[in-house]
Amino acid sequence: MGKNLTSRSEDYSKWYNELVVKADLAENSGVRGCMVIKPYGFAIWEKMQAQLDKMFKETGHENAYFPLFIPKSYLSKEASHVEGFAKECAVVTHYRLKNAEDGSGIIVDENAKLEEELIVRPTSETIIWDTYRKWVQSYRDLPILVNQWANVVRWEMRTRLFLRTAEFLWQEGHTAHATRDEALEEAEQMMHVYADFVENYMGVPVIKGIKTESERFAGAEETYCIEALMQDGKALQAGTSHFLGQNFAKAFDVKFANKEGKQEYVWATSWGVSTRLMGALVMTHSDDNGLVLPPNLAPIQVVIVPIYKGLDQLDAIAEKVDPLVKELRAKGISVKFDKRDTHKPGFKFNEYELKGVPVRLAIGQRDLENGTYEVARRDTLTKESVKAEDIVNRVEALLTEIQENIFKKALDFREEHISSVDTYEEFKKIIEEKGGFVSAHWDGTTATEDKIKEETKATIRCIPLNAEKESGKCMVTGEPSVQRVLFAKAY
Amino acid sequence: MGKNLTSRSEDYSKWYNELVVKADLAENSGVRGCMVIKPYGFAIWEKMQAQLDKMFKETGHENAYFPLFIPKSYLSKEASHVEGFAKECAVVTHYRLKNAEDGSGIIVDENAKLEEELIVRPTSETIIWDTYRKWVQSYRDLPILVNQWANVVRWEMRTRLFLRTAEFLWQEGHTAHATRDEALEEAEQMMHVYADFVENYMGVPVIKGIKTESERFAGAEETYCIEALMQDGKALQAGTSHFLGQNFAKAFDVKFANKEGKQEYVWATSWGVSTRLMGALVMTHSDDNGLVLPPNLAPIQVVIVPIYKGLDQLDAIAEKVDPLVKELRAKGISVKFDKRDTHKPGFKFNEYELKGVPVRLAIGQRDLENGTYEVARRDTLTKESVKAEDIVNRVEALLTEIQENIFKKALDFREEHISSVDTYEEFKKIIEEKGGFVSAHWDGTTATEDKIKEETKATIRCIPLNAEKESGKCMVTGEPSVQRVLFAKAY
Repeated sequence: MGKNLTSRSEDYSKWYNELVVKADLAENSGVRGCMVIKPYGFAIWEKMQAQLDKMFKETGHENAYFPLFIPKSYLSKEASHVEGFAKECAVVTHYRLKNAEDGSGIIVDENAKLEEELIVRPTSETIIWDTYRKWVQSYRDLPILVNQWANVVRWEMRTRLFLRTAEFLWQEGHTAHATRDEALEEAEQMMHVYADFVENYMGVPVIKGIKTESERFAGAEETYCIEALMQDGKALQAGTSHFLGQNFAKAFDVKFANKEGKQEYVWATSWGVSTRLMGALVMTHSDDNGLVLPPNLAPIQVVIVPIYKGLDQLDAIAEKVDPLVKELRAKGISVKFDKRDTHKPGFKFNEYELKGVPVRLAIGQRDLENGTYEVARRDTLTKESVKAEDIVNRVEALLTEIQENIFKKALDFREEHISSVDTYEEFKKIIEEKGGFVSAHWDGTTATEDKIKEETKATIRCIPLNAEKESGKCMVTGEPSVQRVLFAKAY
Repeated sequence: MGKNLTSRSEDYSKWYNELVVKADLAENSGVRGCMVIKPYGFAIWEKMQAQLDKMFKETGHENAYFPLFIPKSYLSKEASHVEGFAKECAVVTHYRLKNAEDGSGIIVDENAKLEEELIVRPTSETIIWDTYRKWVQSYRDLPILVNQWANVVRWEMRTRLFLRTAEFLWQEGHTAHATRDEALEEAEQMMHVYADFVENYMGVPVIKGIKTESERFAGAEETYCIEALMQDGKALQAGTSHFLGQNFAKAFDVKFANKEGKQEYVWATSWGVSTRLMGALVMTHSDDNGLVLPPNLAPIQVVIVPIYKGLDQLDAIAEKVDPLVKELRAKGISVKFDKRDTHKPGFKFNEYELKGVPVRLAIGQRDLENGTYEVARRDTLTKESVKAEDIVNRVEALLTEIQENIFKKALDFREEHISSVDTYEEFKKIIEEKGGFVSAHWDGTTATEDKIKEETKATIRCIPLNAEKESGKCMVTGEPSVQRVLFAKAY
């Protein structure tokens, strides 16, 4: 095929790394752990952003922007938050460079040392709650329903494109409420919004649940999450939504006068998804030939490749294709007619397969004579010949079919990879050999959770929300349990 | 009016600072020089972004994303660039915090010192051209037409909301071309795109020109700019587009094989506008009652305020207004029907005046009986009574009228504030007393430019592009000059 792509069975991890680069999604930069998101990858991210932003606005949220920097002292104000986030972060200590006196280049000017160091935001709860103090006096000022699209930095030691990078792009919602119930409802709502987006736009099935105490966000009282399963049987956390209680309101002294005029602390949520979703998208659908993109997020949904000898033939083809391009675009379908004469059709087929374009139309001399197009779909790699008069309808239908098919395929895979077990022996065997989610009873203690993690590398991905209550005994300690939880090795 | 807004004549600078905060556009944060852009301000910025992004894409550009951090050594690679940008910047020196042993809080972990300091990007030419080296081999890889929406940091000593902040939001286009002419054409094109946007969406008239050598971007061979005039007679640079020659290609060794197979250095441009435009928007149109927003960028174009006693009256009003809201929205007009019962109509009138909503409709008991709306326009503060059956057409027409009127008003003001002078005495008098642009002959030397700046604080804003060639004598030195240039005091 000329793609020189490692196969998934050979080395899944290598396949992923190669694919992200070869399909022009992203690449490593000269800065440790920071990626360059290339135009094709960014076009997918933009489509994700646009859809999520629409869904946030439909649920009453507005965007705002808060500073990149957080004074060091802010991080310390919420006790568990600082434990979670102060460790690995980028610290700004100086605000000026100067020419070295020995002419060796530019150096940090030691006279320009900051009185208090600034942290490049790893997440923005602290700077935002410091701001909300000024915004909230009365119950009339609540709720605050704000979202921010931003870059954040966490100094990860081992990085991988999209999945774990020192700098990444994300959105972080930060809301403030008058009551505990309203905040809880908001946190739950955003989990559902995320699940809706990930399933219906990315075509990635997810399981909704809550995190155990040890997997919770630093500073949260409850963390809602959606968990997806990758083709190698490892889980990936696709989004989280946190009920923060009054922790940040207390840390930053954010109170409001309720209807009775009494001062109360404000209730909080925060929720986020990031460019990590790009990794989930690639790893869920793609195959050994390259990306497979869901039509709902593909920057190019349909590519048309002319097969011709000489400009006369190309002109004849263009005469047919140009009106088709217009017609498809009028229906909101993004189409590329690739007339480049610097590359052969085979090269182009290969390129669009690698880049995951959902539908490819080819038209050559014989198609012209027969009034047909050759239609290839990326997900199944099958081809059919379609009459020119039916082509618009067929393309429209195909885009829907492909969106549904890749979701169903991923769902089937996940269902095949949820194993219910009752003994720890069985658990270890499945985690080691089959992978996927393992549904098992657990005694509810962090000690047991830690022991399992240490011995098997599997963690509790979530306590599923829609699962039946079923009493049983912890597979490790035999202590009573009220519900099965989902374990998996995870990204 | 209850707004407690300082008037422009009293203290223009104070008026601006107060207005930005009171109209909920932005406020200072706990981080020196960094602002919080509040939801209402951000909604305007989002509209600017959306329109600019559309215009960039229509001219063939794609978005991408490059790292926030720049290794210190990169900055030094382009000699004049480092002089311009290495001075005042945020320097990351460490990547970890830890708990102080004496329990006093968290401190920087000295064991986590970076081998090479990282600079928070003040602009991204260096990191981007380091990347382009990998993207360009042959003429087939050119042009690269990439834009990035990002935050940047310049450690300014004196900051003002939107106009000059340590962190600001912007877009930066970075393009790579095979020929000098193509790059020059691109740089010029983007100046025209900016002018189109600023005039037709922001309603702010601009003068297109090129910068003198001393005002050029650090690393550019030519800087195209658009210059606007604020109500206090000071100029504001609203956007710049740079022809960078082969400077960055040489500094980062970016070569391509041309059609003849010969290696050549790539030609570059970069261009940007920032949240500074928000400052220009406020200062151009607003008045002593608050913001005046152009309909093309107003988050709320039309507000409807019911005047009622008791819920029965409100219901009767809502029965009329709800279908109107739908009808206006169907035409793409953003409407808010403010039914809050916590605030009186007078309070609401005041609030929307302060926030610059272009059109306000009020409807009370008598309007209901007469089948009318009271229509108030923000730009002229005039009112009229309009029959319900004409209201949609009138609102549509008004939005166009207001957009045109505020542009014309700003244009008239600017035309009245371009003074042509032939002597330095006259020049100083006008700069001191009348302000605005002063059109004068200059001998083309940096020495004279510096002298004028030192003595009058006026700088050469640009050498206008559409001006007639007119030979004359430098007003300071008497040396020959081929064209008048525009001077002004500037933000």
